[in-house]
Amino acid sequence: MAVIYRVNMSELSVRAEQPKPEYAELGGRALTSAIIADEVPPTAHPLSAENKLVFAPGILTGTGAPCSGRLSTGAKSPLTGGIKESNSGGMGAIDLSLAGVKALVLEGKPAAGKLYRLVVTAGGVRIEPADELAGLGNYDTVARQRAEFGEEVSCISIGPAGEMLALAASVAVTDVEGRPTRHCGRGGLGAVMGSKGVKVIVIDPRGGQRPKPADVQMFKSAAQRFNECLKNNPLTGEALPKYGTNVLANVINAAGAYPTRNFSSGQFEGTEAISGEHQHDIIKQRGGIIAHACHRGCSIRCSRIYVDEQGQYVTKGPEYETIWAHGADCGIADLDAIARMDRMEDDLGLDTIETGATLAVAMEAGIIPFGDADGAIRLLEEVRARTPLGRLIASGAEVLGKAYGVQRVPTVKGQSMPAYDPRGAFGIGVTYATSPMGADHTAGYAIAANILNVGGKVDPLSPEGQVELSRSLQIATAALDASGLCLFVAFAVLDNPEAMTAMCDMLGGVYGRRYTAEDFQTLGRSTLARERRFNTAAGFSPAHDRLPRYFKTERLAPLGTTFGVPDEELDQVFESVV
Amino acid sequence: MAVIYRVNMSELSVRAEQPKPEYAELGGRALTSAIIADEVPPTAHPLSAENKLVFAPGILTGTGAPCSGRLSTGAKSPLTGGIKESNSGGMGAIDLSLAGVKALVLEGKPAAGKLYRLVVTAGGVRIEPADELAGLGNYDTVARQRAEFGEEVSCISIGPAGEMLALAASVAVTDVEGRPTRHCGRGGLGAVMGSKGVKVIVIDPRGGQRPKPADVQMFKSAAQRFNECLKNNPLTGEALPKYGTNVLANVINAAGAYPTRNFSSGQFEGTEAISGEHQHDIIKQRGGIIAHACHRGCSIRCSRIYVDEQGQYVTKGPEYETIWAHGADCGIADLDAIARMDRMEDDLGLDTIETGATLAVAMEAGIIPFGDADGAIRLLEEVRARTPLGRLIASGAEVLGKAYGVQRVPTVKGQSMPAYDPRGAFGIGVTYATSPMGADHTAGYAIAANILNVGGKVDPLSPEGQVELSRSLQIATAALDASGLCLFVAFAVLDNPEAMTAMCDMLGGVYGRRYTAEDFQTLGRSTLARERRFNTAAGFSPAHDRLPRYFKTERLAPLGTTFGVPDEELDQVFESVV
Repeated sequence: MAVIYRVNMSELSVRAEQPKPEYAELGGRALTSAIIADEVPPTAHPLSAENKLVFAPGILTGTGAPCSGRLSTGAKSPLTGGIKESNSGGMGAIDLSLAGVKALVLEGKPAAGKLYRLVVTAGGVRIEPADELAGLGNYDTVARQRAEFGEEVSCISIGPAGEMLALAASVAVTDVEGRPTRHCGRGGLGAVMGSKGVKVIVIDPRGGQRPKPADVQMFKSAAQRFNECLKNNPLTGEALPKYGTNVLANVINAAGAYPTRNFSSGQFEGTEAISGEHQHDIIKQRGGIIAHACHRGCSIRCSRIYVDEQGQYVTKGPEYETIWAHGADCGIADLDAIARMDRMEDDLGLDTIETGATLAVAMEAGIIPFGDADGAIRLLEEVRARTPLGRLIASGAEVLGKAYGVQRVPTVKGQSMPAYDPRGAFGIGVTYATSPMGADHTAGYAIAANILNVGGKVDPLSPEGQVELSRSLQIATAALDASGLCLFVAFAVLDNPEAMTAMCDMLGGVYGRRYTAEDFQTLGRSTLARERRFNTAAGFSPAHDRLPRYFKTERLAPLGTTFGVPDEELDQVFESVV
Repeated sequence: MAVIYRVNMSELSVRAEQPKPEYAELGGRALTSAIIADEVPPTAHPLSAENKLVFAPGILTGTGAPCSGRLSTGAKSPLTGGIKESNSGGMGAIDLSLAGVKALVLEGKPAAGKLYRLVVTAGGVRIEPADELAGLGNYDTVARQRAEFGEEVSCISIGPAGEMLALAASVAVTDVEGRPTRHCGRGGLGAVMGSKGVKVIVIDPRGGQRPKPADVQMFKSAAQRFNECLKNNPLTGEALPKYGTNVLANVINAAGAYPTRNFSSGQFEGTEAISGEHQHDIIKQRGGIIAHACHRGCSIRCSRIYVDEQGQYVTKGPEYETIWAHGADCGIADLDAIARMDRMEDDLGLDTIETGATLAVAMEAGIIPFGDADGAIRLLEEVRARTPLGRLIASGAEVLGKAYGVQRVPTVKGQSMPAYDPRGAFGIGVTYATSPMGADHTAGYAIAANILNVGGKVDPLSPEGQVELSRSLQIATAALDASGLCLFVAFAVLDNPEAMTAMCDMLGGVYGRRYTAEDFQTLGRSTLARERRFNTAAGFSPAHDRLPRYFKTERLAPLGTTFGVPDEELDQVFESVV
């Protein structure tokens, strides 16, 4: 049975423990949030020894269930001040699972300035000094580990931003090729890892074993059926493999909800040049890779490998959100410049959403003009140089906005909004406002029903039905984030009862009992309830479940809309949940 | 009857209105907080057109009541995100009162980059373009006004920090000599003034009239008795005139509650060199001035004029809090260096408490070492140069701490703690934690009973009685801040029923009716209740009525104490008030 490792960075000691009964069926976000809620004082400073950083593979991770390789990383967030689960693809979760790890919990804090490496194997976890890695980017950091341990290992690491304890610092996870391109980006969890003095976690799955479902037959049949559903769905079976996540650029732009120049408009005149279709053509033409899987066992393969004009590797993807954040939101219509920034941020260990949004606020502040790609790259170089301006860029939009007196800062609970203007899709606004994670599209992806006509159809510009939509999606997502399944399976599950059943049967197969859609709901509800309770104790109140006020007063061109869901309705999102 | 002027900076228009009946008896903080609570949406961005900046002389200001020249400035604070009243001496309030102004309310927001001057006379208020003042320090700004309008005018102004919309920006008020040495320092109200595009308010009292008490006899007799009480009290009659506010340095240091090197110890080895006694000797020896009044009609005269070795004017005071913030808290035992920083910050328009505390956090972050006076002065020069590091210094300790990953940041509600470590005086800790203003000693000066044996004696190191002490002081202070009386009169009033009666009789004389101690209490309670309601709607919850957690876990040397008032007791402070 998989164990929970407690790594105490104050004492530099490791303890393996059997999960307590309440944790037995939990995994992923359900487990990280349970441990944080149970063990971290809600008013603890996120960078203090009292905070914990929890890594947990999902319930299905490692079983061979399709698209189930997600890693949940949890802590009290330095960016939001609330509980945080940040979720990534890559190989980290699968390898943790193979090594028999249910959760890896970093506790305490070493002497300042000391860096360590953790090595996780099927035999246990060891802590080793790693001061020589100080200041290295994620690319060099993981390359050194692979040189030392071989190509079978995967790595979870931080770059200079995490070492700087920067609020926008990410936790990097290596992909199938061993590159640090997949990130638990949101919420500054890289800074928590930095505060624990852990530069890199090397996971060596050799000698480990796949977790065995309790009912192998039930599981296998369900996994097959589930895979079929993914293949047959037009989004997961065609659009995402072919165009990647950035297939959304033209769609969201056409809907007028594509935030442009720091959310001052909902359409970007340069969208074509940064669209998924154009990205597809460039990659094909230059000999890059489309339909790339970020982890083994992914049948959707929305990732891609972006190469330069000489066909040399630049970065993965980049993803829709990254392209938007550095593209439309900064007024930059240059895919090569955006790819370069993606690579720099992966290497620095920065959340690309937060950082792109921060660059846009820096443009609004007049530090550089909108559209200035070279200037934006220079600002990222300031991060590596650890200048005061670099510190500000790495601190996220809220802090930069405060330091420069910027009034239009599109954040909720201190976290920057992703690539959908809530004035053009009210449902996602409800999620941004009320999710315990801060502004986060993945917490309840209302764009599906608002714009993509998946999982029903809810008029994006009417307040009606948005609260119910966001609530049910937030519940389902919390459960999905526990399962280890990629959020994109939702496209197939939302409209297909067969897929829903197959998913439940995979979980039932793992547990060895009947598992219903209601059980799935309960898992999501209980996770959200825990997270909300933590946040209330940490200081969040209804006033924090709001968009910045200007989304209610400033009209979004060209739609001419403001965010129309009344505050009282926002307060109803969690009424029946917690 | 005094009027309320509404200055709309969007439309560049002025409207005079009679105060509505509920405002008739209000002044000072009671009036600024009422207007903010009634008119500003609690979730408005502090720098948006929706915020308002209210200036109000106290109820007694201008009547000739001793020590009644305090100006209240109110707004939603950019620093705390809550309601704010910041209070200053100087001549501004008296001259507003003489000009017939009950309150001056700045509303709206002009086009970005535009600066204006307001000229207030007994005949009304006019708005004039003042782009030529852009970037000027407070000293040059007011000197130009006095050159133009004559020496009879007083000024309320902002320096470069306010123009930069910096979170630590103050509102400067000229003193008796016409120097911008008195500041509504706390809460970043200078940034709100900057956001309104108002660089300076020139107040010309010529042709105005003293407000006339309804019962002149009652008022006159009470004012005389009150003045006697101030003269006969050893603190207000002797210690404060002779040694100034900095008489406290040795006292608080001896009590072990003198925060040293960013609150890492409660005693500073260099205290003697920056003490009030030494300050007195230096000033006398160099030909400066002690027992200086910051406004006409002050009989306490705790201000002083600090001069250099050549006898040339450097700055006022500096005050106890300023000397502490740049002295013990930064590990700097050099009065001349501290005076120079005080002058720089008065000129830049920065809160000296917030800025000194920020310099200490910058030292903790390793930007400069503790004790580095030259380095600290260089950091202030960065503010004038508007560099990114200067922006951070002017943004206060909380933002700087976030940008540099500092865990030990001594703030409550985003505002830096003043010169008393709450682990050495639990009562002031209760005030810091629970005041609607954020960490603020003046909001309920429990040091009186904790250390000075004034107003009773409450053991500073026992939780017992601290909640009651802080509550009654917060109520009394809210009323005092409405009256326009200087907080220091409390030293005379707290232990002397005669002084209390005289104070009430002065208010009764103004209103023309019997005014009791209970009426005074009601005034304080209703003001606090308004402020608390605003803050709750703005997002404050019980978790915000707390000191940073490390005050409960990290022992203060040499006392060896942690802050001992339980959270549940903190939650009782306002139970009976709101």
